Amino acid sequence: MIEDAEVLSSGMRREVDRCDKAVDLALEGNKVAVICSGDPGIYAMAGLVLEIAKGKAQSAEGQDKLPPIEVIPGVSALNASAARLGAPLMHDFASISMSDLLTPWELIERRLEAAASADFVIAIYNPKSKGRQEHIGKARDIILKFRSPDTPVGIVRAATRDDEKIVITDLNRMLENEIDMQSTVIIGNSQTFTWEGRMITPRGYQEKYKLE
Amino acid sequence: MIEDAEVLSSGMRREVDRCDKAVDLALEGNKVAVICSGDPGIYAMAGLVLEIAKGKAQSAEGQDKLPPIEVIPGVSALNASAARLGAPLMHDFASISMSDLLTPWELIERRLEAAASADFVIAIYNPKSKGRQEHIGKARDIILKFRSPDTPVGIVRAATRDDEKIVITDLNRMLENEIDMQSTVIIGNSQTFTWEGRMITPRGYQEKYKLE
Repeated sequence: MIEDAEVLSSGMRREVDRCDKAVDLALEGNKVAVICSGDPGIYAMAGLVLEIAKGKAQSAEGQDKLPPIEVIPGVSALNASAARLGAPLMHDFASISMSDLLTPWELIERRLEAAASADFVIAIYNPKSKGRQEHIGKARDIILKFRSPDTPVGIVRAATRDDEKIVITDLNRMLENEIDMQSTVIIGNSQTFTWEGRMITPRGYQEKYKLE
Repeated sequence: MIEDAEVLSSGMRREVDRCDKAVDLALEGNKVAVICSGDPGIYAMAGLVLEIAKGKAQSAEGQDKLPPIEVIPGVSALNASAARLGAPLMHDFASISMSDLLTPWELIERRLEAAASADFVIAIYNPKSKGRQEHIGKARDIILKFRSPDTPVGIVRAATRDDEKIVITDLNRMLENEIDMQSTVIIGNSQTFTWEGRMITPRGYQEKYKLE
């Protein structure tokens, strides 16, 4: 889709360098687009670009040179995984990343506990990496303190891509399935049920609406 | 964009009728698309369609007649509002609807308390309607128990539409602004800051990454 534009790529874990380069190029007068998968506004590049732009704008050489920055929303792993699973996000939900690179693990545990105790559907980003094999197991243990072992759990890897993999399981058996850094894990609330390979959270708690 | 298709519309609050009709038409052999704004998978039509399909599939006349159902993800108010505000959702967040039509108010309060206490960014859907003017004020009071009055708050009405309205304010003054049923309210976490009319949540808690 790209015509007549210079393309610069960077590897994984090089996000800061990439955004830094993008802001520098913008300061030099170029029109620059930073591209990432998913929604740049959810755990992604939008914040980093703005933070770096702020730093440079406030420095002597950046003053008055920074062009306008626009964030274009997209379909995050949350949206895509939910669609592939059925309709798990029909009610209040919490999104929690298992990455403790920039967040104390104690705070992640506190969030899991808070979300589980208040019956939020829970979406887990970055459930596992080489350095953090055990976090998703700890998360499951915390959620099990508040929720039944047969609570539906959806695991979606590479949602909507060619190598997509979708599993619907439950809290009890979820760790028997492959979960990696590219997976998103969605844990149902107390009302979530499964039907024909779908995970569905009803939109309410009482029989206040009739379906037929 | 629609060519060669029959279009059936329904008004607000007629969601059940609309989905019911859509499933009936599908059972009659039609190829049917249910269209809604935002992402059908976040507080929207996907769940209702699946719930109704389940009911009809399990009835005598629906047996074996139900065609496959696909959910196409989209950009929810959460994604769109975040993009328009800057980058408030760079860290863990909770999405809570203020509508107590189908959810006990006590549970909504419990969720607000849980999300506020664990320093989630909080996205509030359906903040106000004619019947519920006071809920958003109660929500603010609960969040203020855990967060500073100068915590950034973004209010986005009709995100990305012609009549879009964007306000960045703080917990202290948020109620001085117009908030209605079409608004999405995003409340920052303890780290969220504003810069040049943007609301930015950093992607971590410690100075573990360098920006320059």
